[in-house]
Amino acid sequence: MFTWPVRVYYEDTDSGGVVYYANYLKFMERARTEWLRDKGFGQTELLRDHSVIFVVRTVQVEYLRPAKFDDLLTVTVRFHAAGRSWIELDQTAEHPENGVLVKARVKVVCVNGQTFKPVQIPAPVRERIERIS
Amino acid sequence: MFTWPVRVYYEDTDSGGVVYYANYLKFMERARTEWLRDKGFGQTELLRDHSVIFVVRTVQVEYLRPAKFDDLLTVTVRFHAAGRSWIELDQTAEHPENGVLVKARVKVVCVNGQTFKPVQIPAPVRERIERIS
Amino acid sequence: MFTWPVRVYYEDTDSGGVVYYANYLKFMERARTEWLRDKGFGQTELLRDHSVIFVVRTVQVEYLRPAKFDDLLTVTVRFHAAGRSWIELDQTAEHPENGVLVKARVKVVCVNGQTFKPVQIPAPVRERIERIS
Amino acid sequence: MFTWPVRVYYEDTDSGGVVYYANYLKFMERARTEWLRDKGFGQTELLRDHSVIFVVRTVQVEYLRPAKFDDLLTVTVRFHAAGRSWIELDQTAEHPENGVLVKARVKVVCVNGQTFKPVQIPAPVRERIERIS
Repeated sequence: MFTWPVRVYYEDTDSGGVVYYANYLKFMERARTEWLRDKGFGQTELLRDHSVIFVVRTVQVEYLRPAKFDDLLTVTVRFHAAGRSWIELDQTAEHPENGVLVKARVKVVCVNGQTFKPVQIPAPVRERIERIS
Repeated sequence: MFTWPVRVYYEDTDSGGVVYYANYLKFMERARTEWLRDKGFGQTELLRDHSVIFVVRTVQVEYLRPAKFDDLLTVTVRFHAAGRSWIELDQTAEHPENGVLVKARVKVVCVNGQTFKPVQIPAPVRERIERIS
Repeated sequence: MFTWPVRVYYEDTDSGGVVYYANYLKFMERARTEWLRDKGFGQTELLRDHSVIFVVRTVQVEYLRPAKFDDLLTVTVRFHAAGRSWIELDQTAEHPENGVLVKARVKVVCVNGQTFKPVQIPAPVRERIERIS
Repeated sequence: MFTWPVRVYYEDTDSGGVVYYANYLKFMERARTEWLRDKGFGQTELLRDHSVIFVVRTVQVEYLRPAKFDDLLTVTVRFHAAGRSWIELDQTAEHPENGVLVKARVKVVCVNGQTFKPVQIPAPVRERIERIS
């Protein structure tokens, strides 16, 4: 399981005093980006070398407890399943004392960077993900 | 079905050239806020008069086609179901020519504005929603 | 003077209970986009037909009073000055009762959409702006 | 001079292919928050113990060069001047190869967390800032 720290700043909160619900999707994507980088694949290089980008196809999010300004969260990424052109990941945002605040399942699809049509996940990415999971 | 127009500005897009996936959740919430207002309930008044706010408990989103800068989208809100303290809504973001771009089911829970504990939806809100649906 | 209404949603506020300071720059840009559209120039068309986009070069912002959730603000755009490749605008965000909340002077530069190098403002845009101001 | 690293994610960019201009203000605030924390003052504690928060009163920003997706920027904070209730800081966002991309001068005011009225900067904060600058 990959983990990435995310500090909550004012920009992330709303006037309810907690992190705005859409912003957890930003946190989740930061962690996915770093998870890919950790496996050796920057997205800039993937686009340049393989002409592909990963786009989100579906998201299911469960909001269990709120995060607040200044909280230092841990966002996790865990491989769940993959097909020819897609990867499904399980993610959480966790608080050091309050535990899991938000759970998400995210399906990303590998698409051509110009046409946005689904294409096969580049072999090196695929191998690296399958070897690890 | 309630509809609300949303124009796509630069702030909503990302360097993939399309609307950033988390931002549709902003569009969806704008439409829910206006749907409530249209039924006679501003959220500022709900907090002041009934000490409640609505928070999102779960979201399921399907991204079908991308929206672009300058697109004028229609965001819809349709009542799906309700319980003592929650409401489930079906929402879409639609493009005038390309049809439905994004579909979402959103469950909001009525909570006390201080404690964030679930409480009964205020009777006038409940009646108005049920009469219409 | 051009005016554009902006409703404050949860997404715009922070846990201080007021609109987050960076978000006024979003409101200001929405108004500039609509000001240009009102003069007959969509930015998508400017890019397609003239290969140019407008980018912000400098911004000076004064925050006088806070806006809150649900406020319906009026954002204004007033031409101040222009050069061969730039336009300077004076903008405000105003509250119906509390008056001017935020004042900004914004200098935008017309650049090539590929190279980001400054280029002459397309003649039709220039004429339309100067005729009106 | 205090420095803070900021990675550019998709959320920060726009369809022009570069970081959206308002988002640098988020980067600048993250760095100011960490600058204060580095001096021993979390803002949550300042609010709890001294009933104060810092709000931005004026901002002047100069956009020199664009940042792109995946860039790892360094945001700097340098003390410039202070009064009884305000602090003025000079900030930059820098790219490892392209140098300074954005320059800002930011004036923050110390206000009561409830009334938003300017109040004296708490003595320990003041001392720590002056001793260092």
